[in-house]
Amino acid sequence: MAAAGAETKEVENHHDDCCVQLLNPNLATMKEDVLYHFSLSTSTHDFPAMFGDVKHGMGIPSIAIMLHELIKLLYHARCSNVTIIRIGTSGGIGLEPGSVVITQQAVDACFKPEFEQIVLGKRIIRSTHLDDQLAQELTRCSKELDEFPTVVGNTMCTLDFYEGQGRLDGAVCTYTEKDKQEYLRAAYAAGIRNIEMESSVFAALCSACGLRAAVVCVTLLNRLDGDQINSPHEVLKEYQQRPQILVGYFIKKCLRKA
Amino acid sequence: MAAAGAETKEVENHHDDCCVQLLNPNLATMKEDVLYHFSLSTSTHDFPAMFGDVKHGMGIPSIAIMLHELIKLLYHARCSNVTIIRIGTSGGIGLEPGSVVITQQAVDACFKPEFEQIVLGKRIIRSTHLDDQLAQELTRCSKELDEFPTVVGNTMCTLDFYEGQGRLDGAVCTYTEKDKQEYLRAAYAAGIRNIEMESSVFAALCSACGLRAAVVCVTLLNRLDGDQINSPHEVLKEYQQRPQILVGYFIKKCLRKA
Repeated sequence: MAAAGAETKEVENHHDDCCVQLLNPNLATMKEDVLYHFSLSTSTHDFPAMFGDVKHGMGIPSIAIMLHELIKLLYHARCSNVTIIRIGTSGGIGLEPGSVVITQQAVDACFKPEFEQIVLGKRIIRSTHLDDQLAQELTRCSKELDEFPTVVGNTMCTLDFYEGQGRLDGAVCTYTEKDKQEYLRAAYAAGIRNIEMESSVFAALCSACGLRAAVVCVTLLNRLDGDQINSPHEVLKEYQQRPQILVGYFIKKCLRKA
Repeated sequence: MAAAGAETKEVENHHDDCCVQLLNPNLATMKEDVLYHFSLSTSTHDFPAMFGDVKHGMGIPSIAIMLHELIKLLYHARCSNVTIIRIGTSGGIGLEPGSVVITQQAVDACFKPEFEQIVLGKRIIRSTHLDDQLAQELTRCSKELDEFPTVVGNTMCTLDFYEGQGRLDGAVCTYTEKDKQEYLRAAYAAGIRNIEMESSVFAALCSACGLRAAVVCVTLLNRLDGDQINSPHEVLKEYQQRPQILVGYFIKKCLRKA
């Protein structure tokens, strides 16, 4: 099982986590380190050249690149029964900030459960189906944990954080507060409980490749109340850990069963 | 003048540039540092909390977020006569790898000079016009420099690196080598000389806000010959510096005139 998380916005200070540190002094003295399950070795592969530039960003293009390459890696490594869970942050609609949303359907900015893409100049549409049973299992876990409010709802995936999500505070805004409220309330009526920027292509690519997938995001604010994320740093940091806590609980439960 | 570069792919090893280092020992002893032109001070603003998470990614959503906020920063700082130049890497079409492309028109995956966006559930189209005179000035600079091949051409901006650019090596591919070649040759016939993932929204947002803008990208490979970037690390590193060298030359020339 691989749990892959793409954070949409990192609220932590990065000064203290510039490079990945391992808590194992033996590695420094080893001439070769074989990552057996990936069929990779430090003596036969140049890891810094291969992976040193790994630093993915926000939005559909960034997660699509990561997924194409992660899925190929899983294929080359002959992994089986893989489950992929996207964890991250989002804007909520009609929810108390800090609520966690387990995605039922990933929908586009027109509320359709579709991912549209241009391939060789032609528009193609892919389904954004996610695994219902997995969402149910995660919901059960959230009830067992009982640490923070968790709901199952639709997740809207947009290409833009400002105009694309109806924010009034971008460099460009051509609509009114009333237009924005109408759009967000229509989204709520369509079952949408949060907005982020990766779920639709995540669902589409995982579904196309037969991977069991789920999306678990915490909401940092209630978009019906405003656009800016101005909760204190420590509060946001705690919110951000909630999807990790839920998915961590789920993974441990699976391992106990196995 | 602000020269903003969003690298689409960083080929450098990041172990040695984790944090930004300043070559000025005085700063460590200063109780307060006022960034006068930004109206920011280390004593009144918490810089790590405000900017410590700055780490933008690849593609339209990432650069759009950066641009909305950069343009608002320029506005709050009351900057005038701003020129913004995107530098980065790209895939070339019919060009020797290492060639630099100064963008004439940023076009979408259907070869149209448009940026399509969903705002409040409605499709809107924005022009991707770039400053012709600025492109001409950059072309003159490249001739004066005479260090690497530089062309003026159209730049195709896609939402995806694999299927969206007609690559055959993604996790998903539903077309043939022949289909791909036809698409890339049609792109060439439409004046497209390189493909990247940021130029259309960059041009659209700068144009909407009245900012003089240009796009200068180096090509890392000729897509008519293949899909994978497998030039040696050192070669890619040198290629990547070319847009910086050209834009650096242009900036110095402007400063001499001022």
